[in-house]
Amino acid sequence: MQIIINPVKDKWPGIIKRPAISHDSLQEIVEQIVNDVKQNGDEAVKKYNLKFDGVEQGSIQVSEQEFLEADYLVSDELKKAIVMARGNIEKFHMAQFEETRKIETSPGVFCWRKSVPISKVGLYIPGGTAPLFSTLLMLGIPAMMAGCNIINVCTPPGKDGKINPVILFVAKMLGLKSVYKTGGVQAIAAMAYGTSSIPAVYKIFGPGNQFVTAAKQRVSMDGIAIDMPAGPSEIAIYADATADPSFVASDLLSQAEHGADSQVLLVASSREIIEKVQAQVSFQVKNLSRKEIISQSLQNSRFIVMEGIEDAFELLNAYAPEHLVIASQDAEQLADKVVNAGSVFLGHYAPESAGDYASGTNHTLPTNGFANTYSGVSLDSFMKKITFQQLTREGLTGLSVAIQAMAEAEGLDAHARSVSIRLTQ
Amino acid sequence: MQIIINPVKDKWPGIIKRPAISHDSLQEIVEQIVNDVKQNGDEAVKKYNLKFDGVEQGSIQVSEQEFLEADYLVSDELKKAIVMARGNIEKFHMAQFEETRKIETSPGVFCWRKSVPISKVGLYIPGGTAPLFSTLLMLGIPAMMAGCNIINVCTPPGKDGKINPVILFVAKMLGLKSVYKTGGVQAIAAMAYGTSSIPAVYKIFGPGNQFVTAAKQRVSMDGIAIDMPAGPSEIAIYADATADPSFVASDLLSQAEHGADSQVLLVASSREIIEKVQAQVSFQVKNLSRKEIISQSLQNSRFIVMEGIEDAFELLNAYAPEHLVIASQDAEQLADKVVNAGSVFLGHYAPESAGDYASGTNHTLPTNGFANTYSGVSLDSFMKKITFQQLTREGLTGLSVAIQAMAEAEGLDAHARSVSIRLTQ
Repeated sequence: MQIIINPVKDKWPGIIKRPAISHDSLQEIVEQIVNDVKQNGDEAVKKYNLKFDGVEQGSIQVSEQEFLEADYLVSDELKKAIVMARGNIEKFHMAQFEETRKIETSPGVFCWRKSVPISKVGLYIPGGTAPLFSTLLMLGIPAMMAGCNIINVCTPPGKDGKINPVILFVAKMLGLKSVYKTGGVQAIAAMAYGTSSIPAVYKIFGPGNQFVTAAKQRVSMDGIAIDMPAGPSEIAIYADATADPSFVASDLLSQAEHGADSQVLLVASSREIIEKVQAQVSFQVKNLSRKEIISQSLQNSRFIVMEGIEDAFELLNAYAPEHLVIASQDAEQLADKVVNAGSVFLGHYAPESAGDYASGTNHTLPTNGFANTYSGVSLDSFMKKITFQQLTREGLTGLSVAIQAMAEAEGLDAHARSVSIRLTQ
Repeated sequence: MQIIINPVKDKWPGIIKRPAISHDSLQEIVEQIVNDVKQNGDEAVKKYNLKFDGVEQGSIQVSEQEFLEADYLVSDELKKAIVMARGNIEKFHMAQFEETRKIETSPGVFCWRKSVPISKVGLYIPGGTAPLFSTLLMLGIPAMMAGCNIINVCTPPGKDGKINPVILFVAKMLGLKSVYKTGGVQAIAAMAYGTSSIPAVYKIFGPGNQFVTAAKQRVSMDGIAIDMPAGPSEIAIYADATADPSFVASDLLSQAEHGADSQVLLVASSREIIEKVQAQVSFQVKNLSRKEIISQSLQNSRFIVMEGIEDAFELLNAYAPEHLVIASQDAEQLADKVVNAGSVFLGHYAPESAGDYASGTNHTLPTNGFANTYSGVSLDSFMKKITFQQLTREGLTGLSVAIQAMAEAEGLDAHARSVSIRLTQ
C-alpha cells in the first residue's frame, strides 16, 4: 500500500498509471490456436480443451440431461436470489429500449432511427477461481431482451468435464439453450469463425484472462465485433469525513478479492480517514477466505490524500475507474463532477457488490482507463440502429437547391442529377 | 454488369460477397509511419506530408488568416446550402439526446444512466478526388453537440499546401478551431499519440483510403477507439413494378461515382425492370463528369431478379448494405422487413443524395457488411454512458439476502461482507 499526500499534478500520471498489459508475448500462441480452430473446427476445440482444461470430451454442447442435473444441484435459496437479481436487471435494462420517433427535419422530410437486434452474438463466461454466473445474467438478460436470434454461451468445463451447475441453471432460466463446454482462445475462435457444433457470431461479449482478451482482439481484426477492450477489474473510492471507514475498507477488500491483479485506489480528504480505513482493512481481511489474493492485490493499491475536492475529482476522472464509490453524505452532488467512470455508487449504502449482482445495473464495465471512451454493456450493446428517411415530393423540392449546390461543390454531379431527375418529371 | 435471375440460396453467398480487402500488404508501411510519428512527432508528420502530398510546410495548424481567406472563396449560394443542411442535421441529432431517467428497480434502489461526452476526439476528412466537406458536417455537428472538449480535424492539403476552402468554412461555422493540414497514416498516428502541434485523442472518426483504414485499425490495437471498420461505399436498391427506372438508374449512378471500388446491387421483382434501368443507366451516364469512375465501378455491379418479395429482402439483409433504397410505393411497409442496413431511403422521392447531404441523417455508415452489427455515426458515438446507483438503507436491506447468497456461491465472501457490515451497525 502506497500513501501519497496532496500530490502535485506532475505526479498524477504516475499515480493513475495501470500496470502495462502486453499481449505481444501471447500473440504467437493465440494466432496458432485461432488458425487451428478456423481450419479444423470442433476437432481443434476438443484438442485444446484436453490440453488446457484436461477434459476428454464427447459432445461440446451441453445436453438437456446436463441442464436437468444442474438444476438439482442449485439450492432453492440461491435460485430465489438469482430470480430476484434477474428482476432488477430486467427492469433497468428494459428502460433502455428506445422508442422510434419520426423527426420532420424540414417540411415533408421525415427521418427516424429503428433499433434492431444483432442477430448472432456470443457470450463468454470465464471459469477459473470463481465461476461467474452473475456475468451470464449481465450478458444473457440484455441479449435475450434485445431479441438476438443466435446466442452462444461458451464457458470452460472443470476437470470433471462439467459446467458449474449455477451457470447452467441461469442459462436455462433465461432461455439460453446453446451452451458450449469450451473456454480460452479456442472458444473465442470457434464463435468467431464457427465450427460444426458452434455457430459463428457477429459480436463476442464477456470478460476473460489475458489469453481470452488477446483472442478477442485478434478476431476483431477479422471484423468480429467485441464488447470492449478488457483489463483487470478496479475500484476507486472517494471518502470524506462523513464516510464510515469500515464500509470503505469492505469495498476495497471486495474489489481486491477478484484477483491478484485487481486495482484499488482510495482518494480521501484527510490522512486521518486513510489511517482509519487501513486499520479496518487489516482487521477485516483476517476472516476472508481469499486473503492471499487480497494481500497481493493490495500491494498495488494507492491511498491518496487530496484536500481539495476539485482536485480529488479531477484525479478520479483522469483515472477513469471501472467502479467509483463516492462515500460521502454529499454523494449526489459530487456525482455531477464525475465524467469518466464505468459505474458509480453513491452514498453509504451502495457497495460495489450491489451493482455486481442485484441492483439492476450491468457489471460488465470498461476497465484500464477505457471508461473515458466506452460505456459498460447495456441493451444497446446487443442492438444496432438503422436510420430511415422518407421524403414527399415537396420535401425533396425543399432540399433540392441545397443538395445540388453541395453535390456540385464536391464534384459529384450524379448526386445532383438524382435529385433533378425526380423533380423535372 | 452481371444479371442473375432468381438465384437459389446456395448461390447467395457468392452474390453478396464483397471483394476481399486485405490490409496485410500495407501493414509494414503503416507500422513504420506510425512508429516514426510516435517517436518524432511533428517532424515526422511534416516529412510524410512532403513525401506523399508534396507539401513543404510551415505550421501544421490552420491559421486564422487561412480561415479568413477561405471564407472569401466560398460562394454565398453554397454557404446558404450548407447552413440549410446544418439545420436539418442538427435537428435530427438533437433528438438523439437521451434524458436521464431514474429507475427504482426495487424499493429504495435507484439506478440511472448519464450521457457524458468523450472529452477528446479526432475527425479525419479525406482529400482526394472529391473534397468531402459534407463529412465534416456529419462528424463535426454531433461532436460539437455532444460537448467534446478537444476536437481535432485532420485533412490533407492540396499540392499548393492549402485546405479546400469549403472544409475551412464548415469548420469555422461549426466552431471547430483546431484544423490540421495533414492526411494519411501520419494524421491518424498524430491524433492517436499526440505531437507538439496535434493533441492526442481517445477516439478517431472518419472515412479514408486503405492506408487510413489500416492506420485506424493499427492504432485501435493500442486502445484508441475508432468509429467503425471501413470499406468502399455501397448501395443496394430494391425496385418493384411501381419504381421509376430513371430514378433507380440515377441512384445507382450516384453511388457508382464515389469511386472505382464502389459497390452497386440492384434487386428487382422482374427482368423487365432491370432492362429498363440498364437502358436508363446507359443513357444518363453520358452526361456525367465522372463517367470513367462510374464505368469501372459498374463492372462489379450485380442486377438480380427476385420474384419472391420475402426472398428479396432476405438477400438484401444478408448483404447488409450501407445504403438501401426501397423504390416502391409500398416502401413504408417493406421497411419493416429491413434488419441489416446502414441507412434506408423510402419511396420515390428519397434519393441517397438527400441523406448524403441535407435530410438530417448521418452519412457516416457501416460498409462491407458491418451493418449487421454496427450503427452509423450518431450523437451516441461521441458520448459514453455512465451508470449510477443510489440505495437507501432499506434498499440495501431488500437486496442483501440475494447479494450475499450469490456472492457466496461465487466464492467471493468479501463481496458478501461489504453488505453485512453496512447492515449490522
